[in-house]
Amino acid sequence: MSKSRYVSGLRSVEQLLATQAAEVRSLYVEYQTANPRVEAVVQKARDLGIEVQQANRARLTQISGEARHQGVVLDIRRNQLWDEAELRSQIETKLEAGERVVILLLDGLQDPHNLGACLRTADAAGVTAVVIPRHGAAGPGPTVSKVASGAAESLPLVQVANLGRVLDWLADYGIPRLGTSDGVEESLYDADLSRNLALVMGREGPGLSHGIKERCDALLRLPMHGSVSSLNVSVATGICLYEAVRQGRIRLAAEGSSG
Amino acid sequence: MSKSRYVSGLRSVEQLLATQAAEVRSLYVEYQTANPRVEAVVQKARDLGIEVQQANRARLTQISGEARHQGVVLDIRRNQLWDEAELRSQIETKLEAGERVVILLLDGLQDPHNLGACLRTADAAGVTAVVIPRHGAAGPGPTVSKVASGAAESLPLVQVANLGRVLDWLADYGIPRLGTSDGVEESLYDADLSRNLALVMGREGPGLSHGIKERCDALLRLPMHGSVSSLNVSVATGICLYEAVRQGRIRLAAEGSSG
Repeated sequence: MSKSRYVSGLRSVEQLLATQAAEVRSLYVEYQTANPRVEAVVQKARDLGIEVQQANRARLTQISGEARHQGVVLDIRRNQLWDEAELRSQIETKLEAGERVVILLLDGLQDPHNLGACLRTADAAGVTAVVIPRHGAAGPGPTVSKVASGAAESLPLVQVANLGRVLDWLADYGIPRLGTSDGVEESLYDADLSRNLALVMGREGPGLSHGIKERCDALLRLPMHGSVSSLNVSVATGICLYEAVRQGRIRLAAEGSSG
Repeated sequence: MSKSRYVSGLRSVEQLLATQAAEVRSLYVEYQTANPRVEAVVQKARDLGIEVQQANRARLTQISGEARHQGVVLDIRRNQLWDEAELRSQIETKLEAGERVVILLLDGLQDPHNLGACLRTADAAGVTAVVIPRHGAAGPGPTVSKVASGAAESLPLVQVANLGRVLDWLADYGIPRLGTSDGVEESLYDADLSRNLALVMGREGPGLSHGIKERCDALLRLPMHGSVSSLNVSVATGICLYEAVRQGRIRLAAEGSSG
């Protein structure tokens, strides 16, 4: 199922760039146009960090399926943005079907590169959905989409008003909430990550906020053997999620051999 | 043992920026100077991506231990650069002492951010040394040092003319050479990473080159469960190195309980 969609024509393209730029993946524009409105659209896209690709008139018609494109076509691939109710409903469906639920919650990442890298890794690790705060954190946009290599468009992303409240209701479903922190004893490798899991990763620098730590059922540390005091958050997220992949694999193999 | 060192004075600072900029961590400069040579030094440092920090005259004297600093002080923290002979000698010493050897070889990373992130993770995972090609790849510099968060100054880094030759002689010491690749059957989690190890990671995009793949004793794949086809190289490096950390921990615990 492709989520690709195209919007063409100056008025539509101008409006989309003005109001929903975060959903735009790239702009296709006709070579050698002398139209100042087209020039302005290209400049606006560049300012927004959107990839600009040149094409001839026939190619634009082919891409957009529309001959009256006026030399500009936007490639929009909508993010799978769920709201909190949709997240609950999807989790309930999975739990009822006996499927594993792995939720990644990011407690206020500031850098869109880190958010994009976390989405890419979460997608590869088979995460159910990624939950981020709606305010005070990096959100979906062109940089995130680019770094995520397509994951931002296939992996459900949930922006919520209150991350703590999500952790509260995840507990009602019996999903253990595991956070990472430097100053704790329990190692990642002593924890059971083989089943349902809500993994909470902290913001670059300060890590998890107090209110989020309090809600975690366990805080885990990654072993650190060198001189640096922490790992990049996207690397740490990859290590934790792939430990869950490894443990889940072993559990499935054990269940398979006993069943 | 601190590797910090300071160089002050216009002539010395200008020369260092011209010839050994890769070893410079930051420039301290006096506020509100009207000296065009100082301005030129600041501009040069900014062009090189070196962090510029302002300080008053007394602070510069304190930092550099030198009153005649002329308003400019460079903070230099030398990388631990080993040559290939030093790498062999350090590996021999470790093997003789019965210590574990884990070498990370990076087959031509292009992005200094990725190299820095790999160094940071390698340091945290207790890697013995990181080996990179001298030519055609990102090398040590201000961006790498910044992203590596200090690891570039504490973790031995070896730039070599020929990565394949290093893989050849690593085999003489009985160190297994494991590479990662998408198109192979064997999973990372089926491999023994509990002992001595040379882990080879490929370049962004194309991955390991043919000549390097041929020299690996095994090629491993990371399980991919989503829509993206690969992980960021620094995330993949973190997942592989921490699997070696986990397996090494289990082996040590088993040896401890049996001894």
